[in-house]
Amino acid sequence: MSASNQPPRLSFVQKLHRFKDRMRDPEWRLFGTNLLLGKFLGLAALAAVILGLHAVASLFTISTALADTPAAAAVTAADLLDQAKNPVINPINTLWVLLGAFLVFGMQAGFTMLEAGFCRSRETVNVLVECVFDTCVCGLLHWAFGFAFMFGGGNAWIGWHMPGDPSKSLIFMSGVSVLSVYGSTGIPIVAHYIFQFAFADCASTICSGAMVGRTRFIGDVLYSIGVSGLIYPVFGHWCWGPDGFLATMGSEGGFLASLGMNFHDFAGSTVVHSIGGWVAIAGAICLGPRLGRKFKRDGGGPMQPHDLTIAVIGGLILWFGWYGFNPCSTLSIMDNAGAGRVAMNTTLAACTGGIAAEFLAFYMLKKWDTGAMVNGFLAGLVAITCPCYWVSDVGSCILGAVAGLLVIGAMELLEHLRIDDPVGAWPVHGVCGIWGTLSLGLFACGQYSAAGSSPTGVPEVVANSPQALTGLFYGGGWAVLKAQCIGSAIVCAATFASAMIMFKALDAVKLLRVTKDDENEGLDISQHGNTAYPEYLVAALASPHAQEPVSGRGSLPGGDVAPAK
Amino acid sequence: MSASNQPPRLSFVQKLHRFKDRMRDPEWRLFGTNLLLGKFLGLAALAAVILGLHAVASLFTISTALADTPAAAAVTAADLLDQAKNPVINPINTLWVLLGAFLVFGMQAGFTMLEAGFCRSRETVNVLVECVFDTCVCGLLHWAFGFAFMFGGGNAWIGWHMPGDPSKSLIFMSGVSVLSVYGSTGIPIVAHYIFQFAFADCASTICSGAMVGRTRFIGDVLYSIGVSGLIYPVFGHWCWGPDGFLATMGSEGGFLASLGMNFHDFAGSTVVHSIGGWVAIAGAICLGPRLGRKFKRDGGGPMQPHDLTIAVIGGLILWFGWYGFNPCSTLSIMDNAGAGRVAMNTTLAACTGGIAAEFLAFYMLKKWDTGAMVNGFLAGLVAITCPCYWVSDVGSCILGAVAGLLVIGAMELLEHLRIDDPVGAWPVHGVCGIWGTLSLGLFACGQYSAAGSSPTGVPEVVANSPQALTGLFYGGGWAVLKAQCIGSAIVCAATFASAMIMFKALDAVKLLRVTKDDENEGLDISQHGNTAYPEYLVAALASPHAQEPVSGRGSLPGGDVAPAK
Amino acid sequence: MSASNQPPRLSFVQKLHRFKDRMRDPEWRLFGTNLLLGKFLGLAALAAVILGLHAVASLFTISTALADTPAAAAVTAADLLDQAKNPVINPINTLWVLLGAFLVFGMQAGFTMLEAGFCRSRETVNVLVECVFDTCVCGLLHWAFGFAFMFGGGNAWIGWHMPGDPSKSLIFMSGVSVLSVYGSTGIPIVAHYIFQFAFADCASTICSGAMVGRTRFIGDVLYSIGVSGLIYPVFGHWCWGPDGFLATMGSEGGFLASLGMNFHDFAGSTVVHSIGGWVAIAGAICLGPRLGRKFKRDGGGPMQPHDLTIAVIGGLILWFGWYGFNPCSTLSIMDNAGAGRVAMNTTLAACTGGIAAEFLAFYMLKKWDTGAMVNGFLAGLVAITCPCYWVSDVGSCILGAVAGLLVIGAMELLEHLRIDDPVGAWPVHGVCGIWGTLSLGLFACGQYSAAGSSPTGVPEVVANSPQALTGLFYGGGWAVLKAQCIGSAIVCAATFASAMIMFKALDAVKLLRVTKDDENEGLDISQHGNTAYPEYLVAALASPHAQEPVSGRGSLPGGDVAPAK
Repeated sequence: MSASNQPPRLSFVQKLHRFKDRMRDPEWRLFGTNLLLGKFLGLAALAAVILGLHAVASLFTISTALADTPAAAAVTAADLLDQAKNPVINPINTLWVLLGAFLVFGMQAGFTMLEAGFCRSRETVNVLVECVFDTCVCGLLHWAFGFAFMFGGGNAWIGWHMPGDPSKSLIFMSGVSVLSVYGSTGIPIVAHYIFQFAFADCASTICSGAMVGRTRFIGDVLYSIGVSGLIYPVFGHWCWGPDGFLATMGSEGGFLASLGMNFHDFAGSTVVHSIGGWVAIAGAICLGPRLGRKFKRDGGGPMQPHDLTIAVIGGLILWFGWYGFNPCSTLSIMDNAGAGRVAMNTTLAACTGGIAAEFLAFYMLKKWDTGAMVNGFLAGLVAITCPCYWVSDVGSCILGAVAGLLVIGAMELLEHLRIDDPVGAWPVHGVCGIWGTLSLGLFACGQYSAAGSSPTGVPEVVANSPQALTGLFYGGGWAVLKAQCIGSAIVCAATFASAMIMFKALDAVKLLRVTKDDENEGLDISQHGNTAYPEYLVAALASPHAQEPVSGRGSLPGGDVAPAK
Repeated sequence: MSASNQPPRLSFVQKLHRFKDRMRDPEWRLFGTNLLLGKFLGLAALAAVILGLHAVASLFTISTALADTPAAAAVTAADLLDQAKNPVINPINTLWVLLGAFLVFGMQAGFTMLEAGFCRSRETVNVLVECVFDTCVCGLLHWAFGFAFMFGGGNAWIGWHMPGDPSKSLIFMSGVSVLSVYGSTGIPIVAHYIFQFAFADCASTICSGAMVGRTRFIGDVLYSIGVSGLIYPVFGHWCWGPDGFLATMGSEGGFLASLGMNFHDFAGSTVVHSIGGWVAIAGAICLGPRLGRKFKRDGGGPMQPHDLTIAVIGGLILWFGWYGFNPCSTLSIMDNAGAGRVAMNTTLAACTGGIAAEFLAFYMLKKWDTGAMVNGFLAGLVAITCPCYWVSDVGSCILGAVAGLLVIGAMELLEHLRIDDPVGAWPVHGVCGIWGTLSLGLFACGQYSAAGSSPTGVPEVVANSPQALTGLFYGGGWAVLKAQCIGSAIVCAATFASAMIMFKALDAVKLLRVTKDDENEGLDISQHGNTAYPEYLVAALASPHAQEPVSGRGSLPGGDVAPAK
Repeated sequence: MSASNQPPRLSFVQKLHRFKDRMRDPEWRLFGTNLLLGKFLGLAALAAVILGLHAVASLFTISTALADTPAAAAVTAADLLDQAKNPVINPINTLWVLLGAFLVFGMQAGFTMLEAGFCRSRETVNVLVECVFDTCVCGLLHWAFGFAFMFGGGNAWIGWHMPGDPSKSLIFMSGVSVLSVYGSTGIPIVAHYIFQFAFADCASTICSGAMVGRTRFIGDVLYSIGVSGLIYPVFGHWCWGPDGFLATMGSEGGFLASLGMNFHDFAGSTVVHSIGGWVAIAGAICLGPRLGRKFKRDGGGPMQPHDLTIAVIGGLILWFGWYGFNPCSTLSIMDNAGAGRVAMNTTLAACTGGIAAEFLAFYMLKKWDTGAMVNGFLAGLVAITCPCYWVSDVGSCILGAVAGLLVIGAMELLEHLRIDDPVGAWPVHGVCGIWGTLSLGLFACGQYSAAGSSPTGVPEVVANSPQALTGLFYGGGWAVLKAQCIGSAIVCAATFASAMIMFKALDAVKLLRVTKDDENEGLDISQHGNTAYPEYLVAALASPHAQEPVSGRGSLPGGDVAPAK
């Protein structure tokens, strides 16, 4: 029960005693909370300034509108005209995109269940509060500037204005008029925002999975701001922005013009999942493992999930939400065949991913493992997210199965590297995000347009033409694979580097990890003041040191159980 | 451990002993159940009469149809013509409304999880059965007469027939032909019914949250009938019925014609949430607190939620369902910009509500509280439900944040008033429902038509015109705010008064609250005969008197734990 | 505590001791797992062969496409033309069908929760892994050949090619081109596949509910392959295939031409639910009851569900998903009135089913039972699934209520027959599936076209004409009822017979049921190596022999509790 793998900053028993003394001392509690409160007042002040600035700006906007009614009307008339040209198509496509937005938002329930189920009961409340708070922060930031940074026109690195119209800012949506639509999609920007917020929220939530059980709540909030507000939208702009350098890569005058091929990521294997996964691993590295976590090579193994029912149902809800994630990323149901194909490929990759991972786990453990099953189908889903529009059904089966094997290998690798990723965020999202991105270069089957679906009409049939996206295995040569490798490498490296800087900075100011005392008490008690299941009796194995009774928590005569609180 | 805050009707220890004796006596059990059964046979007979009457009526309807085929055909031809004029628009809008109906129905899962998670384990089964039974009752009643009362034409107080055609009754949908559509929406009445049933069910379920843990199941059923069948549809008719006096307020010849402004409630801050919340508080008052509930001013505090995971996931599922509640209330996706705006505003208010409540709770508790987080975003959602179509994004942020602060204050107020509302139904739905309704008078931004969306075409652009709805903060004067105050006050007062009468009447005939014996045993055992988690060992704090072992339930040697059953 | 109802193969105490010894012996573990592994390598090899064959086939397909570009283009042009005739209708209908597919897929979360909640904690992990694995297997098989067998053209018994074009195989979707649509629906085959996969998955998952707690995981996998790959698609083809003999029954030259009426099953009371339920009962019979399960006539009763919260929420999620199951089975939202009517009828039958079952249970138990409530509304939903398009609202109320009574009776019958169906799969799906199918013959109200909805236009109004489907109670005579009886009897008998053969075969090779040792240890430990809730203390009543402490699992001094692991 030695803490040999822990940072040797202090003796655990001493800490425990000091902590018990301190807990009895109201002054000490006051000191800590005041410290926290002070920091947060600063944050609140910042938020107030942002809101205040915008309130002022919007007052100006309204007075401008009052002054310039003709100009404003002219713009709106043009918008209306656009709508008039497509009187029914744009509403239908908006319905499709909103359906997708709602389903992807529903994935928050899935992520929260997955993380809550896979953690220990003593850190469950922290997972719950973190996931919800994170969603709230992401919604605000994506409206304030995240959407503008990512989908706005601007330059190759970052966006800020309406695509094609630099006079209208997307910061705080201030240049958005009643009927503004996003680019050529015909989707109102307000609806597009909802869809994209849900994606951003996924990326942000993925990170938290690897950081369960030892992250300070204030640190959670601050890195969430960093991911939702900067890392995700800026690097996302590179790939999905109208003038991002990876989106325009290979075009004349663009980045690597000689390549003649841009980076493709249909629904976000790189943009959402690799970014989320590589922030996650940076966080897990900077934090270090949870107290008491022993790795396999040290005679231990992963800490046990406290509620597999919740975890598996969460996984199924994620799969359900993925049907919004991938098919609705066509942004147009006019390409109904494309949407159906994406849905089919998504299903097949999930199926083979789950089966492959389960068989591999059985081969290793001689048991039909639960975690492998869930992480396996999630791996398949992550992998198919990038190529789902351009690959065949057989290709989907194969690349999903490979993802299912990779995720098991990556979990073993983390165990070997003594990195504690409680829910497997990096194996699932980081590793399989890369694999899915690269797999397009192998499996793009040469039947479908490289530009993706056309929002306002029937998609062109481009099979086996130069307009089709064709990978290595289908006779298309190395071009697509090269573009995918370059894009994936740039985004993952940039994400990992910036995330490491962010986490190291948080760590330097002692905001990243809770104190040992707090961690031993359990994050739920120390950060949130309550436990998730105060009525249930919880076995001592939920404590960091499995066989030792937790002092001060009323253990029973048998000495190996203690009430949850 | 004195019961000083309890109604001093009898000594608890005496009751407990008597109860233990009685439980061993089969005759006593028989007596109680026979009493209950007799009452229910009456209820069943009533239901049989209703169904029977309708069966007879429908036989007549069919024979009439056989006799009058030409007339019926003529009507249907007109319906068809209508459909023919909008061959695609009506189906698309129906799809949109059905999507909304399904999502709002899904909120039942969310409400049930929220209430089940926030209650104690000993009353969980009661919550589960009550929520489901309530849904079943509501579906039947809304079809039998609820929909007719609420959305039928009639007079200012109540409706009963097809709007515009008094010859066709909506009672039991008996005048509805194959292709009847609702008013000018183009939505088939059968589809509109589904959407509105889901709303009615929300109102009805909200009430149960404040009444957890001490309501007799038969009382649950009876007040559910009152809420679903009468209170909600009648008062709802006032606001949303085609000729409700608040819906037509300010028009020539209408209620308060001089006001020149009608009452607005886009998706139901008043109609669904205030009604639900004010019935809830009436119920909590008439019931009194649960046995053993000590309030803060008496040195106690709220009883602990038994499963925060389930509660928080339930909250997220409610947020997910709200995307059907608000956006689909446009009833037309032709107004795709409106639907998107509503979705965006809904998101922003939820985000600021959650953040504001969490910071306020942290300021008060020095801990990052779970309940505050969840009730905070729900408060924002409730508040934005009324104004979501007419306010700007910045307005949504502000009014959501205010809701998040209000909900915490209202929970403190209930605690001070010694009212036991286990899930915070009144703070969330009652208080924030009012705030949301009034906020429209402040924040309506003068950009969007007062009439809401136009179902069959592109919405008019009415920015800064007299047709736009404009609140106090945007230079529109006091008119909207006055109308909102009048509407909210009338509906809340009428709801509270009628709910008090209903609950007092149930209490007078001893059908409202379980006996002390039954409550001490736990509602799950006494009303439903089983517990939710028979295998888990549950700590004694789940009993009403936290530190005392529950006799007769096999406590362990340590004396502070007992198996769940 | 005698095992008198168990197969008397061996003494339990002996087994228990032998098992304890064996568990300490790594060689014995190795032997067992090697045995299992060998069998699975065979299965994996089979899967590899299937995938490999298809990979080869698809290579040929692609080279053919390269060679025959003109022909392929011609075909695609025709497809495009079709799309061009309906430029918006087909995409809208595809959106509708995909929405349905997503909702029905979401039912997997509901089924998994229902089964997990209704089982004991010691067999929960098995339920979770089984439901997910089953979904993965079903997705693959339905793509590989299930969809072809069921919906392909072929003969009266089985299908394999594109309806109307024998040159294009649906096996592995190999003949499906970019824009192929399914028959006259206008829905791309790839989208139709997703919808139908979700249905197939329901049928397959239903079976597992009756087999909880004693089925070997390898047996689970093998029978899932049998159900998803053969039983469901082949018997489904009879009812729903373009040339299935029940689908074409009564037509000239068809099966029973003299009947003049075909078999109707709108959304699958027979095809999905009866098939699922009758496989389930065959499984429960072949397995025998769980160890320690005593039936009512022997002084026992059903084993207690371990988590009613999860079970009831699962039921509500199923109801939610049913709104995809039934309304979206119109396959066209152009028939928006039909979709709305289906949604209304579905709601009403669920409501009356739940209420009727609850009252009957109260009459029997004098308690408001949870299981009766949930199985009651599910029974109503199952029953309305077949007739939902053709019956009136009153008819729906009545037939739902009857289903609610039947399900309670069927559960009693199983108890009397000493068949252990832990979640009530046969009462809900088997019995009420039959009742729903037959009820169409009674309640079809003569207002709606026998052909169902028309996908590309406004549905014909056929009230009281020969084109309308009219049942016995509405003056239509016996024809419909006869056709329904014939269809239901044939499908149920064929299903039961083939399922019995399958399960007996599995049993003969010892793959169906786990050993007694494994069952006593609990399936979660013995098959999956972990428990669902390792931290919670679980009362001994979760063990098969309620009052005996489970040796070797660290029971507490009190002797009646043991940690979960």
